[in-house]
Amino acid sequence: MRRIAFTVVSLAIAGIAFAIGPSDRDKPPTTAEVMKSAQPSDWRRPDPANTLYLELASGRVVIELAPRFAPQHVANIKALAAEKFFDGLAITRVQDNFVAQWGDADKARPTETATRKIPDESVIAWNKALPIVKLPDVDGYALETGWLDGFPVGIERKPSGQVWMTHCYGTLGVGRDNWPDTGSGAELYVVIGQAPRQLDRNIVVAGRVLRGIELLATLPRGTGDLSAYEKAEQRIPIVRSRLASDVPESERTQIEVLRTDTPLFTKYVESRRNRRDTWYIHPAGHTDVCNIAIPVRDVAVTPPP
Amino acid sequence: MRRIAFTVVSLAIAGIAFAIGPSDRDKPPTTAEVMKSAQPSDWRRPDPANTLYLELASGRVVIELAPRFAPQHVANIKALAAEKFFDGLAITRVQDNFVAQWGDADKARPTETATRKIPDESVIAWNKALPIVKLPDVDGYALETGWLDGFPVGIERKPSGQVWMTHCYGTLGVGRDNWPDTGSGAELYVVIGQAPRQLDRNIVVAGRVLRGIELLATLPRGTGDLSAYEKAEQRIPIVRSRLASDVPESERTQIEVLRTDTPLFTKYVESRRNRRDTWYIHPAGHTDVCNIAIPVRDVAVTPPP
Repeated sequence: MRRIAFTVVSLAIAGIAFAIGPSDRDKPPTTAEVMKSAQPSDWRRPDPANTLYLELASGRVVIELAPRFAPQHVANIKALAAEKFFDGLAITRVQDNFVAQWGDADKARPTETATRKIPDESVIAWNKALPIVKLPDVDGYALETGWLDGFPVGIERKPSGQVWMTHCYGTLGVGRDNWPDTGSGAELYVVIGQAPRQLDRNIVVAGRVLRGIELLATLPRGTGDLSAYEKAEQRIPIVRSRLASDVPESERTQIEVLRTDTPLFTKYVESRRNRRDTWYIHPAGHTDVCNIAIPVRDVAVTPPP
Repeated sequence: MRRIAFTVVSLAIAGIAFAIGPSDRDKPPTTAEVMKSAQPSDWRRPDPANTLYLELASGRVVIELAPRFAPQHVANIKALAAEKFFDGLAITRVQDNFVAQWGDADKARPTETATRKIPDESVIAWNKALPIVKLPDVDGYALETGWLDGFPVGIERKPSGQVWMTHCYGTLGVGRDNWPDTGSGAELYVVIGQAPRQLDRNIVVAGRVLRGIELLATLPRGTGDLSAYEKAEQRIPIVRSRLASDVPESERTQIEVLRTDTPLFTKYVESRRNRRDTWYIHPAGHTDVCNIAIPVRDVAVTPPP
C-alpha cells in the first residue's frame, strides 16, 4: 500500500531497514538512511522559557518562540502568557490555505504588565557572525534562504542587509493593523497553508509550531470578513496559554527538534532536494526552505528516583 | 479589524470601493481594483463533462479534470465515476500539510469498463502552439512556470521538452505504487498543504479542486502508515462521485472560474506579485505559480420559463 510515498519524517525515521548492497554504495543516502545515522547531539531540546503552549479542548499546540528575531514581541508574548491574558479568549479567524488567528480580536481585554504597542521587528540586521546555514537553492522571494536558530530565514545581505523569518507552514506571526500600527502579540496567527511569503518583511514573525498544528489546520473555516468566525459561539475557546517553564515539568511536552546547524542536517536537506526513495523516478534537484519539515521527536523523560 | 490583510479573493472582490485620487493614477491597481474591472468574458464556465463531484456527508468537492494533461487517466476516472465505482468507498488517508486520499485502498472493488493500469501521463510534450501564459518569476522546480487551460504548469522546453501540471494546493493526483506501476484513478489524492513540488513529473496529475477543498483540508489526520486511517470506522465515506454532466442541471454547482489566458489575468497576477493594498509596506516583486489562487465565483442560473 505504498502510494504517494512522501512519508512524514517521523514515519521515515520509524525504522525502515535498508540493506546497502554493493551497487548502492555510491548513492546519496535517502532521508530514512540519514535519520538512522543521527546521533543524540544532532537533536536539541527547545528551551522551556521560549516554548509557548496553546491549550485547546482538542489538545495542545506547542510553539517555539524566536527571541533573536523579535525580542520585544517575544518578551511581550511571554508577559501576556504570564498574566493569563489569553485564557478564555479564542481562535477567532480561520482562513483556508492561509492562517488560523487567535487572541483579543475585540480589543476588549486589559493588559497588566504587557504593552499594546511595540516597534516593528519584522527584520533583523544581517551580519557575517550570524550562524546561518544556507540552502543552496534559488528562491524568488529572497536572495538567499537558510536556517538560523532552527528557524527558516530569508537573507538579503545587500542592499538592505536584512534577515527575516520566512512565512512557512507553521510559522507564528503577530497580527497587526495597517502600518505603522504594529501588533503586540495580543493577536497571533499561525500559517496553515501554502507559504504566504508575500507577508515576509511585512509583519513580525515570533516563532514556529513544533507540535499540534493539525489542531489548528483542521478547524472549521470562518465565513466572515477575512474568514473570521461570524458568531461568538463559533469561536474556539483557548483553555489557557502558558510558557512551558511555567508548567510543572511532569506536564510538559517532552520533545526534541533536529538541529539545523549540523552536518547531518545538511545531509538531511540534500535527501529532500533529491529523493532517492524507490518511489521517486525524477529527483527534483531543488527544494524550498518552506518544503523542509524539521523533524521533531518524542523523548522519554526519566522521573527522579 | 483589518489584520493580516491578505484577503481571499472572493472577499477582495466583494465590493470594497476604491476612490482613485489624482495621486493614485500612476499606481498599479490592487487586486480588488483589477477584479472590479473584470468583464463577463474574463470568466469561463467549467465543462460539466470534465467536472467531477465528490459528495461527502459534509458537502460537495468540485474538481475540474484536465484532459489535455492526462487524457487516458481522465477518461478512466470518468468511466469509474460512471460505473459508480467510488460510491461507498472512502477517504482513507489524510496527511497533515500533504494530501487527502480516497478510493479503493484495499484494491478489493472490481471495475466494469474502467481499467486498472494505464501508461504514465505525468508530462506532456512541449510545443510552441500550446497556449501557455507565462509567469515572469523564477522557479526552482521548473525552468519556467505559467498556466495552460486554467491549470498551473511547469515548463522545460529544453532538454526534455516537457510540460506538466504543478502540485499546488488543491491539485488532484492519481495515486500509484512504485514505478512502473502507475495508477488508474481508483485512488485519487488532493494536495492540502504546502505545494509538494517534488512530486512533479513523478506522478500523474489529473485536475484541480475548484470548490470545497476545505472539506478535505479539515479532515482528521490519520495516524497509521503514511497517515492512513488505522480503523475502518475512521474512514470518511464517499456518498457518491459523479461527473457534473451526469447530474441534473438543477443539482449542479453553478460556478465560473477566472480565465488565465486574458490580459485581465495578467493584471491580476501582477497585483499579487506586488501587493498595493494599504496593509502592505514591502511588495514582494515576486510570486510563485502555487501562490496564485485562481478566483471562482457563484453564478446565478436562470431557470427555463
